[in-house]
Amino acid sequence: MNILITGGAGFLGRKLAAALLARGTLTGPDGAPRPLTRLTLLDIASGADLGDARVRRLAGDLADTELLDRAFEGGVDGVFHLAAVVSGEAEANFDLGWRVNVDATRALLERCRASPGPPRVVFTSSIAVFGGTLPERVPDDQALTPQSSYGAQKAVGELLVHDYARKGFLDGRSLRLPTITVRPGKPNKAASSFASGIIREPLAGIEAPCPVDRATRMLLQSPRAVIGNLVAGYEAPASALPPSHSISVPGISVTVGEMVDALRRVAGDAVADRVIFRHDPAVDRIVRTWPRDFDAQRGRALGMQADASFEAIVRQYLEHDRQS
Amino acid sequence: MNILITGGAGFLGRKLAAALLARGTLTGPDGAPRPLTRLTLLDIASGADLGDARVRRLAGDLADTELLDRAFEGGVDGVFHLAAVVSGEAEANFDLGWRVNVDATRALLERCRASPGPPRVVFTSSIAVFGGTLPERVPDDQALTPQSSYGAQKAVGELLVHDYARKGFLDGRSLRLPTITVRPGKPNKAASSFASGIIREPLAGIEAPCPVDRATRMLLQSPRAVIGNLVAGYEAPASALPPSHSISVPGISVTVGEMVDALRRVAGDAVADRVIFRHDPAVDRIVRTWPRDFDAQRGRALGMQADASFEAIVRQYLEHDRQS
Repeated sequence: MNILITGGAGFLGRKLAAALLARGTLTGPDGAPRPLTRLTLLDIASGADLGDARVRRLAGDLADTELLDRAFEGGVDGVFHLAAVVSGEAEANFDLGWRVNVDATRALLERCRASPGPPRVVFTSSIAVFGGTLPERVPDDQALTPQSSYGAQKAVGELLVHDYARKGFLDGRSLRLPTITVRPGKPNKAASSFASGIIREPLAGIEAPCPVDRATRMLLQSPRAVIGNLVAGYEAPASALPPSHSISVPGISVTVGEMVDALRRVAGDAVADRVIFRHDPAVDRIVRTWPRDFDAQRGRALGMQADASFEAIVRQYLEHDRQS
Repeated sequence: MNILITGGAGFLGRKLAAALLARGTLTGPDGAPRPLTRLTLLDIASGADLGDARVRRLAGDLADTELLDRAFEGGVDGVFHLAAVVSGEAEANFDLGWRVNVDATRALLERCRASPGPPRVVFTSSIAVFGGTLPERVPDDQALTPQSSYGAQKAVGELLVHDYARKGFLDGRSLRLPTITVRPGKPNKAASSFASGIIREPLAGIEAPCPVDRATRMLLQSPRAVIGNLVAGYEAPASALPPSHSISVPGISVTVGEMVDALRRVAGDAVADRVIFRHDPAVDRIVRTWPRDFDAQRGRALGMQADASFEAIVRQYLEHDRQS
């Protein structure tokens, strides 16, 4: 089977690609595992060679119709749509966010519609589709009330995926991902970038500003857990999906203070003391509208899992993702 | 003040135009009534001359940027965005629905964004943004769960209006209108077209097919009530809007059987017996997903009103809207 990953050169895309190549099979619409014969990684950036003959790389803009044509050459059975303009950038650059997160998503769905199959599509939505006054544990059928452009764009994406799926144009499912941490590399323009930075930077001997206070509660997931949940979301039979085709993915709910405490237990005072609380109202305003926890009953029923603890997330980073 | 009505040559557009011209003023963002100096009616169809020097007509496609340029020449203080591809047509023609109901709406919002002011915008949303398993009286903050392309497109419109308003690009509010009846003229491609047809046609001596059964409950509003509610929605101060900027507009909840009974009381057995129940699964499937009633507390608090009875709606049609 031919799989396409958009954002395939990004951190999550690379990890997902490696996981799919290692598995070698994916269960598709017929309910049987089928061998992965081709993995197309589409990204604005050209990524490193993975040294696997099944992998094909395409670099360019997702909104470029010729590039999409090439991505679908020879057929596509399944799509993981990870490419997106992140939350902070979508808030700062309104036009870019709507163009990439909505228009390019729609172009991708159109291409799936034109494909025989129809392809199975995993759309990565976000906790940011929820906002405002929320219950402590947001239920699966909570109303979409985005308070940021990123959240609004992801909510539109969910509506698009649902309507395309309802019409039978594709076999779609939207997964609302918690904040992913710890990401290696450099800070990005996501409002949640600090959730990785306050662990990654201190471990590298660098002071890390934390733009929200210790009591701020966040819903988190490690890279390894999110990859497992993306695969579980892909393999879920269409008949198991809720009417909305949207699934809130489980995560762990911890405060920023508990994150720093876990870092302290794993790496000591000198490391943890490198987190410097420096309030940033722009980041705080976005982050405080997000869900602090998901009920995620549907996701768990589909085999999705949350990490055991934030300490385990820190250890996972040290063992697997830290770049030396 | 300069007002723009999209869909200005349609039944509602003409009625709204006449109402605004008769009022002569509208209360805008500063809270004071201001005289209506120009009323631009934009529509794909060219409409009849209203014989009023304040009225300007523009005929063409809403998605035509040159036409939009002309509509905004000299400035626009307020917009009533009524133009849309109706529900049955949006379901039958997927591409047309998304292009007009979403892309053209976004083009209009972009033009408002480029205008000084910012303009106040009333977006006509619909009961069709809700669907699936719903409470008997749908509360104002019910999750958007559209079960039709039209509903999905209106839900996207609400998200767009909210995000443009949140960014301060316009002063927007989305009004979720009940099914409007009795519309004069001919059947249209709305799934709800029969709700007018089963009154209008029998009164004209013509048999009218009813595609749903007598027990089907609908949320209805007369043309006169909807015009009053559109004006109330326009005049509501931004500070009185809910966080979503969306307002469910009150209507009356009646079964199709009660509609026919009211027709019988007003016009007699011979007329009411011209309603022929002939099940149409395509129409029934769409209609049965819609809300049967709105709680509409917010709308009522803003001065919006439901009709007194369906009998009053039939009499209103006979006295004011029936075309001889």
